[in-house]
This record gives sequence, structure tokens and C-alpha cells, in this order.
Amino acid sequence: MSKTIDFYYDYSSPYGYLASERIEAIALNNEHTVVWRPILLGAVFKVTGQTPLTEAPLKGEYSIMDFTRSAREQSLDYTHPIKFPIGAVAACRATLWLRNNDDETLQALTAPFTHAVYRAYFADNKDITSPDVLAEVAASLGIDVPTMAAALSDQSVKDALRTEVENAIANGVFGSPMMIVNGEKFWGNDRMEQMQRWLQSGGW
Amino acid sequence: MSKTIDFYYDYSSPYGYLASERIEAIALNNEHTVVWRPILLGAVFKVTGQTPLTEAPLKGEYSIMDFTRSAREQSLDYTHPIKFPIGAVAACRATLWLRNNDDETLQALTAPFTHAVYRAYFADNKDITSPDVLAEVAASLGIDVPTMAAALSDQSVKDALRTEVENAIANGVFGSPMMIVNGEKFWGNDRMEQMQRWLQSGGW
Repeated sequence: MSKTIDFYYDYSSPYGYLASERIEAIALNNEHTVVWRPILLGAVFKVTGQTPLTEAPLKGEYSIMDFTRSAREQSLDYTHPIKFPIGAVAACRATLWLRNNDDETLQALTAPFTHAVYRAYFADNKDITSPDVLAEVAASLGIDVPTMAAALSDQSVKDALRTEVENAIANGVFGSPMMIVNGEKFWGNDRMEQMQRWLQSGGW
Repeated sequence: MSKTIDFYYDYSSPYGYLASERIEAIALNNEHTVVWRPILLGAVFKVTGQTPLTEAPLKGEYSIMDFTRSAREQSLDYTHPIKFPIGAVAACRATLWLRNNDDETLQALTAPFTHAVYRAYFADNKDITSPDVLAEVAASLGIDVPTMAAALSDQSVKDALRTEVENAIANGVFGSPMMIVNGEKFWGNDRMEQMQRWLQSGGW
């Protein structure tokens, strides 16, 4: 069984978006595979008592500047969303429905779907909490929209998200992106180089 | 006049310590000089409403692990202080007394004093709020202890710290370390590589 990087991300997290565009290459270069773990930071913040980054005085303004500057450095489009932050429950459920699917074709769409949702929100400024936008994203990947819509109200899919968030908290996840590799946690898009050095060197 | 990097740091900030050990080399490699700007995050947090990193559930445990792991990667000694965080008022005043001093020999001790205070706190676990510890640090650098002690209760030195903190907040500083280069802000030890790329490329 190949070694894995657990990649925890919230669809409303700008740094999650930036990291999601790099994580596969880093995993591949270090002979790991990515386990996509969409979570809801809103639920996590209830435990940790944190507030969204952009809401703190001074820090908020810096953050929005930094999202844009860091995206530019990665040559990614970024427009800070008007509706922000959001709780992308349906997008998380759809991602888990793909990831946990018995149909391998659907399973293989987990990463492309993640990228498409993130880009819809942060590059194209679409409201990814809207069922129409999610349907559009799904359709662009050849996913059958009525099948996905039905899955989103399936109790097992709802439970999958609840479990995913509970397990994340139990594993000490408190932010997005957060990577766990062989028990070692790395938090933030700006920790990915360090994680890569860790993988390459076997730790220090 | 040479170009400068304003380096804002709190003596109770682990990432400030880690960054302080790298900032001079980065500045030198990019033909900048460092302006040492000790601040009190306690005063800043009153404005931003933040709480110390280590006090948040989940995030706190991760942070302490991360301080140690990042220090190890930089080959620096790090033992998380028992008394933490602290408000290192006297250490800040002493640093500003050196930095603003007319005596160039004392002025030149600003950086060595900063390093010595940080190492006393984070490597040797000494209580840098204690006058005896500060005196010991000063003496190790050949600073006349009674002269420094007198300066610390001088109104102009007290005012210098108040002004430094007020200006930091006015400039949008909300954390430690924070670097401002030609109006561009970079926050965190993990943003130093990005700052270096910014300096080398002229921005993006």
C-alpha cells in the first residue's frame, strides 16, 4: 500500500486553495498519494474558539493582501470572494461521495472536482454554496448531476462528512490546509516546502 | 542611504527568535540593512483581539511542536519556556536604548543584544523579565550594567518603546516576526523565503 498524505482542507480557505494546487506534485515527487479530506472549519472553530483570519483587525487586511500576493507567486488566479467565508457543506459532501465511491471512475474525480470547486470560488468568484454552481462544476467533469444531487441528501453521505470532521478534530486538525504524513502535522500553504524537506530527508 | 528591512519582533515570540537568527543574512544577501524593532505583542493584541498562539485548543499543542521542529531544522536550540508568554518590557527598552544611542559602539550592539536575549529565553530558559538576567546578558556583551539600568528608567527610553509600539500598530503590524520592506509586509518566520524571493525578483 502506498504511503499517503492526509490533506485536510476547507473550501472557504484561500490557503487551502493555494495548497491544493501544489499538493499532488509534492506527493508524487516523494512517492506518496494524497487522501483528500474536505472539512468544515466552522465546526472546527467551535472547538478551538478561533475566528476567521480575515475578521481580525490589521491581520484581516494583511491576509487578503497575502492571499493575492501568494496566488500571484504561484501563477494562480485569485479574486477575494465577496461572500466569504462560507460553509460549503454540499461541496464537501459531494467530494466525499466521490472519494468514497465504489465506482472507480467517480473516485478518480475527487481531485479534479476539488480543483474545480476551488477555482469556481476563488478564481471565478462563483457561489459554491449554490446547487446550480455545484451542478455546473459536476457537469463540466462529466458527473451525472441528478445522481450527485440524490447522493447529497443520502444519510450515509451526510454521516461521512460528520465523521470526517470529527476525525479531523480527533487528529488535532485546527486549520486549512493541514497535512498529516505518518503522524507528522504540517499546517499551512507556507509549510509545504518544509513538509517536502521532511519527506526527502526522513525528518530531523 | 542603504535600503532597510524593518524587523518587528516580540521577545516572547518563538518565531521571532527563529527569524532573528536568519534576518541579517537575508538582508545582507540582498543589500539591505536590518532595523531592529522590538515591540510588545500584548499591546498589539489589545487592538487586534488576538490571543497567544499557544492558548488555543489543538493549535496550541501543534504550535509548541512546530516551534521545536522548526528550530531543529534551523539547527537552533529551543526549549519551550515554562514562563510563557511574557511581556519583556525592560528587554525592549534596553534594545531601543542601544539602537537609538548616540554612542556607535552601543548602537552596534543592538543585534548582538537581541540575539543574546532571545537565546537566554528560548535556548537557556532564563527569565528575561528578571533584571539580573538582563544584567548578565548586557555584561556578556561588555555593556556597562549600571548605565543600562539607569537608562531603563529614563523617561525618553520609556517613551521610545511606547512610540515604537504605536508606530508598529499604525503601520499594520499585528504579529511577530513581521518584516516591512519598502511598504511590503511579510508576516512570519515561514514568510522569509518569500520575502527573499520578493527582494531578488523585485516583486511580482
